[in-house]
Amino acid sequence: MVSAFTPSDIYFMNEAYKQALLALAEEEIPVGAVVVCGNQIVARAYNQTEKLHDVTAHAEMLAITSAANYLHGKYLNACTLYVTLEPCLMCAGALAWAQIGRLVYGASDMKRGYSLMPHLVLHPKTKVLRGIMAEENELLLSEFFRKLRN
Amino acid sequence: MVSAFTPSDIYFMNEAYKQALLALAEEEIPVGAVVVCGNQIVARAYNQTEKLHDVTAHAEMLAITSAANYLHGKYLNACTLYVTLEPCLMCAGALAWAQIGRLVYGASDMKRGYSLMPHLVLHPKTKVLRGIMAEENELLLSEFFRKLRN
Repeated sequence: MVSAFTPSDIYFMNEAYKQALLALAEEEIPVGAVVVCGNQIVARAYNQTEKLHDVTAHAEMLAITSAANYLHGKYLNACTLYVTLEPCLMCAGALAWAQIGRLVYGASDMKRGYSLMPHLVLHPKTKVLRGIMAEENELLLSEFFRKLRN
Repeated sequence: MVSAFTPSDIYFMNEAYKQALLALAEEEIPVGAVVVCGNQIVARAYNQTEKLHDVTAHAEMLAITSAANYLHGKYLNACTLYVTLEPCLMCAGALAWAQIGRLVYGASDMKRGYSLMPHLVLHPKTKVLRGIMAEENELLLSEFFRKLRN
C-alpha cells in the first residue's frame, strides 16, 4: 500500500493530523480531516462531539459540510478526503452520498470502522488508500484514551 | 407490527409527516422527522440536502443535532425518533452514536435502508417499530419522484 502514497498525500495527511491536534487541545477525541480539491484544501475540520454535544459532529461530517458549502455543490467526486482515523459507518454513509472521489485514512478503527461491514458502504467509484501516518495517528488516539482512563 | 402502535405513535408520525410536507413545499425529497422525549417534541426537521447543498442534511441528522442541542446532551437514549422513511446507513450510524432509545419509521427504503445490512447497525438497546403510515409516506415519495421525472 505504501507505494501508492505520493508526497502530496503525506502533506495533506499531515494537515489532517494538525486538525486532530486542535481536537486534542480541546479535549475532544483527536480526529482531524481535510478535503482537497485540485490540490487545494477546501475544508478543514476536527471532531467536536463534546463541545457541540452532538454525535454527528465528527471531523469527516464537518469537513464534508464545509467543503460542499465552499464548492456550492453537494457532490465531492472531484475531491479527496484525508482523515486521521478510518471513518465510522455514519461518516462512510455520508461519504457515499457525497460520492467522494478518493478517501485517504491513517489509522484503522478495529471497533467502529466502516470496513468491518461485509458489504460495500462507500460509493462504488470511491478510491481508498489507508495507512498514511497510521502509527502517528494511532498514538495520538491511544495516548488520549490512556489519559482519559487515568 | 400494527398492534404495537399506540395513538401517541400515530400522532407523532403525523407530526413527522407534516415535516415531510414542508420538505415537499421546498422541492426537497419529502422526508420528515421529529424527536420525542417524555411525550414532548424536542426537535422537528425535514430533509434540506438541496437547499443546503449538503448530503448530510437529512431530516434525521438535523433532528438529532437539534434534539441534542435542546437537551444539552448528545445521548438520546430517553428519546424516540419518528421518521417518515427508513433511515439510510449514515443516519442509522448517527442514531447508533446517539444511542436513541426508540426508532419509529414509516415507509421502508428498499434501496438505501439501513436494514439491508446483514449486521446490526443501530445501538443494541434501540427498539425499532416500522410501518406506521407506511403507505402515506411512500405515496409522498413516489409522487415526488414521478413529478421529478416528468
